[in-house]
Amino acid sequence: MKTDLEYLMAEGNIDALLVSGGTLYNPSMHYLTHGAQVGEATLLIKKRGAETVLIAIDMEREEAEKSGLTVIDRADYSWPQLIKEQGGDYLMASVSMIVAIFRDLQVSGNIAVYGRAEHAHTLRLFEELKARLPEVHFVAESAPSILEQAQQTKDEHEVARIRRLASASLEVISCTREFLASHSVEDETLITARGTPLTVRDVKGEIRRWTFERNMELPHGFIFSIGGDSAVPHSRGEDESPVVLGRTIVFDYFPCETGGGYFYDFTRTWCLGHAPPEVERAYEDVCSALELAMSSLRAGKLCADSQREVNDFFEARDHPTLRSSPGTREGYLHSLGHGVGLSLHEHPKLSEASGEQDKLQPCTVLTIEPGLYYPDQGYGIRIEDMCWIDQKNGKAETIGEFDRDLIVSV
Amino acid sequence: MKTDLEYLMAEGNIDALLVSGGTLYNPSMHYLTHGAQVGEATLLIKKRGAETVLIAIDMEREEAEKSGLTVIDRADYSWPQLIKEQGGDYLMASVSMIVAIFRDLQVSGNIAVYGRAEHAHTLRLFEELKARLPEVHFVAESAPSILEQAQQTKDEHEVARIRRLASASLEVISCTREFLASHSVEDETLITARGTPLTVRDVKGEIRRWTFERNMELPHGFIFSIGGDSAVPHSRGEDESPVVLGRTIVFDYFPCETGGGYFYDFTRTWCLGHAPPEVERAYEDVCSALELAMSSLRAGKLCADSQREVNDFFEARDHPTLRSSPGTREGYLHSLGHGVGLSLHEHPKLSEASGEQDKLQPCTVLTIEPGLYYPDQGYGIRIEDMCWIDQKNGKAETIGEFDRDLIVSV
Repeated sequence: MKTDLEYLMAEGNIDALLVSGGTLYNPSMHYLTHGAQVGEATLLIKKRGAETVLIAIDMEREEAEKSGLTVIDRADYSWPQLIKEQGGDYLMASVSMIVAIFRDLQVSGNIAVYGRAEHAHTLRLFEELKARLPEVHFVAESAPSILEQAQQTKDEHEVARIRRLASASLEVISCTREFLASHSVEDETLITARGTPLTVRDVKGEIRRWTFERNMELPHGFIFSIGGDSAVPHSRGEDESPVVLGRTIVFDYFPCETGGGYFYDFTRTWCLGHAPPEVERAYEDVCSALELAMSSLRAGKLCADSQREVNDFFEARDHPTLRSSPGTREGYLHSLGHGVGLSLHEHPKLSEASGEQDKLQPCTVLTIEPGLYYPDQGYGIRIEDMCWIDQKNGKAETIGEFDRDLIVSV
Repeated sequence: MKTDLEYLMAEGNIDALLVSGGTLYNPSMHYLTHGAQVGEATLLIKKRGAETVLIAIDMEREEAEKSGLTVIDRADYSWPQLIKEQGGDYLMASVSMIVAIFRDLQVSGNIAVYGRAEHAHTLRLFEELKARLPEVHFVAESAPSILEQAQQTKDEHEVARIRRLASASLEVISCTREFLASHSVEDETLITARGTPLTVRDVKGEIRRWTFERNMELPHGFIFSIGGDSAVPHSRGEDESPVVLGRTIVFDYFPCETGGGYFYDFTRTWCLGHAPPEVERAYEDVCSALELAMSSLRAGKLCADSQREVNDFFEARDHPTLRSSPGTREGYLHSLGHGVGLSLHEHPKLSEASGEQDKLQPCTVLTIEPGLYYPDQGYGIRIEDMCWIDQKNGKAETIGEFDRDLIVSV
């Protein structure tokens, strides 16, 4: 968490963090600016043992001050003059400004760099900075970086925000199920009040509305897929598909707080009216895998071990996995879960590929999402719950309880 | 536009484009994949004179095929094996895969690179690729890059999408004005049906709902600011502010198509009931500046000249500008406009800093947004229209007509 930053910087031999870019879809800047909404031209410098400094454009000074950080106005560095000197080249003007700021704030040594930008911008920026500041060492860290390590564990304010989000999200899940159940049925198909078949598009429109009404956004969209589409894990669901009985519906919902912020990630699989026996059996297996994984999460455990145990379980139940059948499109096809925070996918990754690096830490918020996919049989199943690792007992506590009934009566 | 790509690549001596990352908030990938929604692990390669190839992960193959491009499955490159060989390092596994793909597709020469990523990821990725492919030259272009140049002019499909967006956006502007006008007034303050003062928060909530209902999103938020807040160009507006008569309201609205896509950008300034004489005078000046700029836009004109003319005009009317009074917080404080497309801010930039580079091209979609800001007098004014440069006569045609009445009767 944020309070670990000084320690992590010392351990990583990093003298300062340099973050560039706005707070939108730029988790590093969002994390360190506490919800202030500043634009692309922003810079942030955090020296070890010193206060964090935000360099903002003049027009955004009011927003910048909401960060609670020390704010420096870009105008103090004669920005228009810099632009003129560089013949209108914003990147070169930024380089001159960063050089001057580093001098004024006495920034030197090993500087870890953060922020999302176009590859070409990043490559030019740091090539120029290295040429102008030969004594500074800009560090491109391997993942997880110091900031990613800090973000992986959540403090009480962050967990409280995620709990509020969970509660609003589960209201949307409930609304969706009630909406489906409220329809009449003809020829195994849900029928709207207009007398036409209910389509995936209709349902998605309602889900978006319920999301909006609860002050959440869907920057990555969401998945509401049925039948054959549900058997391809990342298929979004075809808008024109009618909502029919007896086929699996995978509803994978991952909203975030309005204005950019924390994510929630949750999945249920439903069959309307009835389910084929093979789906019921596979569903039981996915439920058992989820229980197995959740109950055995422990602070200190290797994340790869959780995936290994679920692979063992599915293989023992005669399901192919990517481990037993590399390249398979049937069975268990993805990693078991991932950290969730200001990005939908954060460290740790619960996959065997994560090797012997990722250990589960107390206060981590993560998702567990086993699934089984059988495209030739036209069904897919995934169940996903989010949890945090209790700081006291090191066990997983579910964030957002919701029943796991497969069948939805209509 | 897209049909210019081959020409621009030849002119820039670029043999291939390499694009990485998902389609979300990554305009380069969005532009070339025609609305397919693919995730972070995607790669795209466009060789000069050859078809565009999309390398997608297996789970996303259905979405990838919606792009209409040639799709290669990452599984063909034994991804799990690559990950294992690299001890779980995704970046190093990507490097190995790109090396193999370059070999198979015979990609060589000058490669322009695109895609948004964390600085550290970009720096490591290209350091490793350069080491593994010493004969390839990865080109970090200055702005505007080849893709940005292509994107700057819009084809008829793009303009049609932007016109639809304009029409929906102006409905929201109308709804907002009618909503304000429908309130009763007590002590110069709008009063809700509950009998409490109407706040900026209340208005913003309604604007979000109308936006959602028209299948648009607000990834950058929007500005609805009143009085002193409106005098700081990028202030978002304080949620708790009551909506009062006689103060300027700046409503700057920049939604995009749901699921990521094209943006619209539009601003009006209103005073409820009545306006102080100094606001009325300044408002007339901003209207005149907008008319002046719009009527003199021409294909082939230097973008810097438009800003110069508006600076001349405001200064002749005794308003400070950033040109006449560097660092001023009063008067005309920003550039005149910018291109709009899959990013809210695209080339060209209508500022004097853009120097002698940016000339207005036929089929460019851009915004013109002069403004005047007087924080000590507690008011700000901005008016913004979007236009495209007619391919035939080279003049500006407004996209989305809306009246410019300052006073809203309540």
